[in-house]
Parts: sequence; C-alpha cells; structure tokens
Amino acid sequence: MSQGNLLYAQSGGVTAVINATACAVIDTCRKRKIRAYGARNGIIGVLREELIDLAQEDRAALAALRHTPGGAFGSCRFKLKSLEADRRHYERLIDVLRAHDIRYFLYNGGNDSADTSLKIAQIAGSLGYELNVIGVPKTVDNDLPVTDTCPGFGSVAKYTAVSVLEASLDVASMCESSTKVFVMEVMGRHAGWIAAAAGLAGTRADDPPHVILFPEVAFDEAAFMARVKATVERVGYCTVVVSEGLKNADGKFLAEAGTVDAFGHTQLGGVGPLIAQMVKSKLGYKFHWAVPDYLQRSARHLASKVDAEQAYAVGKAGVEYALAGKNAVMPVIKRVSNKPFKWKIEPAPLTKIANIEKKLPPNYISRDGFGITAAARNYFEPLIRGEDTPPYDKTSGLPKYATLKLKLAKKKLPAYSVADK
Amino acid sequence: MSQGNLLYAQSGGVTAVINATACAVIDTCRKRKIRAYGARNGIIGVLREELIDLAQEDRAALAALRHTPGGAFGSCRFKLKSLEADRRHYERLIDVLRAHDIRYFLYNGGNDSADTSLKIAQIAGSLGYELNVIGVPKTVDNDLPVTDTCPGFGSVAKYTAVSVLEASLDVASMCESSTKVFVMEVMGRHAGWIAAAAGLAGTRADDPPHVILFPEVAFDEAAFMARVKATVERVGYCTVVVSEGLKNADGKFLAEAGTVDAFGHTQLGGVGPLIAQMVKSKLGYKFHWAVPDYLQRSARHLASKVDAEQAYAVGKAGVEYALAGKNAVMPVIKRVSNKPFKWKIEPAPLTKIANIEKKLPPNYISRDGFGITAAARNYFEPLIRGEDTPPYDKTSGLPKYATLKLKLAKKKLPAYSVADK
Repeated sequence: MSQGNLLYAQSGGVTAVINATACAVIDTCRKRKIRAYGARNGIIGVLREELIDLAQEDRAALAALRHTPGGAFGSCRFKLKSLEADRRHYERLIDVLRAHDIRYFLYNGGNDSADTSLKIAQIAGSLGYELNVIGVPKTVDNDLPVTDTCPGFGSVAKYTAVSVLEASLDVASMCESSTKVFVMEVMGRHAGWIAAAAGLAGTRADDPPHVILFPEVAFDEAAFMARVKATVERVGYCTVVVSEGLKNADGKFLAEAGTVDAFGHTQLGGVGPLIAQMVKSKLGYKFHWAVPDYLQRSARHLASKVDAEQAYAVGKAGVEYALAGKNAVMPVIKRVSNKPFKWKIEPAPLTKIANIEKKLPPNYISRDGFGITAAARNYFEPLIRGEDTPPYDKTSGLPKYATLKLKLAKKKLPAYSVADK
Repeated sequence: MSQGNLLYAQSGGVTAVINATACAVIDTCRKRKIRAYGARNGIIGVLREELIDLAQEDRAALAALRHTPGGAFGSCRFKLKSLEADRRHYERLIDVLRAHDIRYFLYNGGNDSADTSLKIAQIAGSLGYELNVIGVPKTVDNDLPVTDTCPGFGSVAKYTAVSVLEASLDVASMCESSTKVFVMEVMGRHAGWIAAAAGLAGTRADDPPHVILFPEVAFDEAAFMARVKATVERVGYCTVVVSEGLKNADGKFLAEAGTVDAFGHTQLGGVGPLIAQMVKSKLGYKFHWAVPDYLQRSARHLASKVDAEQAYAVGKAGVEYALAGKNAVMPVIKRVSNKPFKWKIEPAPLTKIANIEKKLPPNYISRDGFGITAAARNYFEPLIRGEDTPPYDKTSGLPKYATLKLKLAKKKLPAYSVADK
C-alpha cells in the first residue's frame, strides 16, 4: 500500500468530547507524518469533495479541539443505504478518496456510521482500491455493542447527575412553601442509559432522584403517582427524571401519544412538561420542569475526565490501527478492572458492531422500575470520574473554545449532487 | 445594647451562591464571638420558632456551604403584609427574637425581603426591642436597586452564556442536515437581565445568540420570523434566547396568551417550546428547544468567581454592620471602576431598596430589539469573570456539597400557627 493520506469524518449527533477524538487523530497523524484531512459535514462532505485542509489550520486551534464541544468539522444526519441501493454514492466516495490519495478513512460515529464504515471497506475491496477503514466510536446514547462505553456518554452522564443533584438542592430549599415536584427530561429515545446515569446523583435512601422513568419500563401512571405522593409526604419534595423515550403500555411514546393535559388540550411538548402537568392534575402539587436538551450533550465545561481521555484514546488508536494495516475495525474500550478502574483500547471487527444496539441491562433497573441497582452504579460511576475543565478567558469569563478556518482542499473532481440519484 | 445573638434567614428563590453568604455570616460571627442561629425555611421558621442551632453543625460542613448551591437552611415564599394587616405575625417575630435574645437579624433575599426587614426594624423600634436588622441582597433576577448587582445573578449569567455558546457549537455542527433553529428559554418573569446576559456568548457578528427576546420588547412575530429566516440563510442556523416573561403587544405573557400552535392546540408549556413551534409552523425549520429552569440558578459547578466573592462579601459586611449598630440597611455592591473591574461593599438604607424594582436599562437593548449593546456588555462582562469550581469527590465524580444536620434549638414559646390569623 502507498503511504497515502488520512481522512477523518464526524457523523450523527455530536458530543462534548468528539473533538477530543479529532484532536487525537490530528496529533497522531502529525507524529506519524501522515497528511490528514477532515470531511466538511461528515459523509456529505466526502461526497461533495469538501475536504478540510488541516495543514492550513493554526496549531493552537487544533490543540484546543481537545476541549471544544460540538463537531468542529461539521457532522450530518445522512444514512447510506445498502451497497445496491446507494451504489452511486459508494462509488463516488471511492472516487473522492482516490482523487486525494486517501488510504485511511476514520469515521467517527455510532451504529449507522459503523455500518457505513463496513460498507465502504467492502466497496473499496470490491473495486480494488487499497483503503483501511476504521470506525471510531462516539455517541451520547451509549448503545454501541462490544465497547464498555461510548465516548460522549460519560460527560452527558456527569452533566445529568450533577444537574439533578444541584437542582434538587434548590427544590429541597423551597419545598416547604413552593415547588414540590421537579421533573427533568433527559435524552435517550430508545434506551435509558442517560436516565439511569441520573441515578448517580443519590447515594443514600431518599436522595434525589426519587423516581426515574425509563424507556424500558412501560409507564404505569397509578404506580408513578403513588410513588410521587409518598415521596413528597416523606421527603418534602420529589425529583423525577424522565427519559424522552418513555412509552405507555401500548409501546407508544408518551410525548406523541396524544395524551391530554389537565385542561383537555393535546400536549405536544416534551414528555417532561407532560409528566409535570399530569402530577399537577392528579396530585395538585406545584411543579417545575427542565429540559436541558442540547445543553446536556454539549456541556464540555463539565466533561468527565475519564470520558475525555477515552475519546482521545480511541482517536489515537484509530490512526494507529489504520497505519498498522487494520481494516473494518473499531477501537473499543475494554474495562480491565473496576476497583481500581482500569481500561484499555483494543480492536473489534465492525461486523460485530454495525447495526447492533446495546440495550440497558435489565439488572440495572431496580425491581420497582423507578431506580437503579448496585450493578448499575458499579458500571456507571467510574465513567463520570474526574473533571477536565477547559481553559477560560480571563476577560470574557467564557471557555476558550476553538474556531477553525475550515478551508477546503482544492477540488479535483466534477461537482456531485448528494440529493439527485 | 446587650451582646445578644444573631439570626440569619434565607428568603425567596435560592441561588447558586446564597450559601456562600450564609458561610460568610457564620465565619464572621465565629470570629466576632457571636452566637449564630439559622432560621429553618426562612421567615416561616422564625414564626414557628424553628431556629437551627449552628453550634451543633460540623465545622467542615459549614465551611462547605461556601460552594454549595440551594438554600441550606431552607427558604420560603411567604410575604408579610403591612404592619397593620399582619401585626400578629410581626409581634410573634419579636417574641421569638426576644426569647432567644436575638439582637441581630440578617434577612437574605430580594425586594420583598428588604421590605420585610424594614418592617421588622420598625416594629422592633415601636415595641422598644433593641434589634439591628440587616437586609442582605440575593436574587438571580438582579432587580434590586442601589446595588450594582445582586449575588446569584453573576452565576446564572455565566451559566446562561456558557450554555448558549456550547449548545450553539452543537447546532452549528449539525445544521447542514439537521436542526436549524435552537430556542433556549431563560428565567426572568419581569425583566430581561438573564436574557441579556446570554448575549455575552457572542462577540463577533453572527455569533450566537442571534436573537434575544426580552420581556421589555413586545413580541413582533413578523420581525422575529424575518430575523430567524435571514439568520438561517446567512449563518446556516439560528440560536434564539427567550425570556420566560416575553409578552405580546397587549402586554400578555406569550406562554399564557392562549396562543395556538401549528395544530390548532392551545399551547400550555413554556414560551421556549411555543416559540420553537411557531418557527416550525411559519418557516418549516427543524428545531430543538431547551428550558434549563432550576438548573440555571443552581449550577454552582459553573459559578462566577466574582459572584461567589460578592455573595461572601455581603454576608460578612452584613454581620459587621449589625455589630457596629447599623439598622435597616443593606450591604450593597458598588462598582468602583470597570477597567480594571473593582468593587466595594457599602451600606444603603432599606428605605431606598424595599419594593423598588431595577429595570433593564433601555440602552442595554440594541435598536432592533433583538440583541444587547456595548453598554450592556460593559456592565455584564465583569460579573461572569473567573471560575469558582467546587471540590469534587474522586470516587463519585460529584461535587462535594454540604449536608447540614439542621438540629433545632430548644423552643421556649408556645406553638404558633402561621396559617391561622
């Protein structure tokens, strides 16, 4: 194989630490004297031949990616279908890679991206183009199999646990004469990983969160109301964490189930405000609700140190694997021991990862369905350990996040429309 | 005046740094050898003779109040009416203070609390009970007059600006193929102080937030939609910050105005989701919205150092003023110079503060009504400077926040019902 160049692309929902992976890729390429490009807006940018020339970026800005949230090169929601259905796209990808002598392609994403990476490896093989494709893990959803966790998850877990702890101290102060029920909605459309991590906020009986509503447990309104009422009567207030993916017994999302609120109006907002209104309607308690939404997955200011280190480690290993001739693999995190917490990176074949969703283990959810078990705590706790505070500007008081120039390398191919087929 | 004891009470909505004020009060009392009590749940606790015996608390826990959010002794929403209407309550307050030889009363709150402090000083005087009453400033609303700012505000301002910056980096990464409009709702029912502080996130043209919707500017839907559309077309995405107190041209809160969404349903959630739905309905853009709610005012993990220092300083000065014989005053913050930023504490009479709301100056809002001016930036920027990160537990990964025992001093008076009149 020729030495060639390396292309790194970000895919799907971004995280607080995906740029730490990018930073590792760039650092490692520099050390190994490999020319690196970044794809503008993920795979769309590859199709459009929009390759960011990283040689034109300031060194300091590239180093600052280590602590900058979001996806610095742009990411995308664009799923390639099967090799047959999207053959035109796959062939174009190879054309673009060939035009820029890209021999290493690192695709940083979740399940879909692992699948795309695998297919690109296959088409390159069938077209006789020498290419090493590495899927690099990233997703706040924590739903990739094989790997112990997904970079991005530990930071959203830390943000969520700390936010529940802090907001609950606020509610506890006021509950005698004000808000008695506080509902916080967290991400997790298909699995309750983030909701479960919220459970880390409490360690003793009656610590918040008092109720967690998981997508894995069908919503039982009567049991929920009974739990909220008992908690308010015993503790003085009740903190509820609800996953956006909460479903009713029919398997429908509560947020989309046409549930009517106390006033008979169909509720179209998130499930957090919905649950809060239901509590008000049934129990009469004063409530507040919060939906941090993107704040939770971009909160680099509160990143987990373990998460940031793992994000960097998978980026570094991704380059090393590619240069060592590995293909169609992903650098995954293996937990070597829990006490003391030790982990390492090892390669895993993409065939074992693509399109497979790791579910929250049933034994992580307490028997009553409203909390987490000791097994869950053992798993989650190390992931939120340590802080990795970004540098702050002394004048503005804001974190010093990187801004890249994003200058594109000169195009060599005719224009290509991603939309037309 | 006899030496006597000191009572400290927290009032109204709590903040990320009100306990830093409590910590300062306790530290200063210890140095001055004054016995200090804390009222359980604010003025309600005084009426009920629920005085927390601070001598029974661990020193380490009291020191940790310096970095613990919420109100550690409990706060309350309970407004005393005029001396005539609530004479029974005022006399009871004096009875309780007398029973425990309280000669210094520090009431830590906002406008209402300043009013209550003033009335307590008056009734003590008319009953011939020697008492020095000090109102100590606190409110995320930043609406107290005379003082340059209110402890609690700088931290919510910092949280808001950093969150807007971080979430916007996320949106910017994805806008090519996903969310184009991000709406974040912030606190501020009556004034746009917090909304304005969000403007600190951006320093260059087209930096987020691209639109701020203030309670001070009647919502003009057409102008707003035009601005959002132009921003998305020019920048690729649009970040909108909306104050919960946004009103329409009739002066009604949008969140309560019976506005119907795209589906013809009356919208009862917050104004953030409402605005987001309106954008979707009129412009068709994919949107996300966030409502951090209590997270914003309890985010001690991201406190402003200036704010934490000012919160401590007003607590210390409050005790010193009381011991020096001052009465019916508030320690306020005076900005001595802006460059370099210097401030000091000085006493101001409660008569100049009680029941007076400081509005956002009109010259802080840009001419188009959607942003902040250089004058605003000059005022706000120093308030979010510096970080005051709490200590974290190495095992749990969570901040080490204080837990008090809250043991009550022995009661000396008959029980008293706050509700009966």
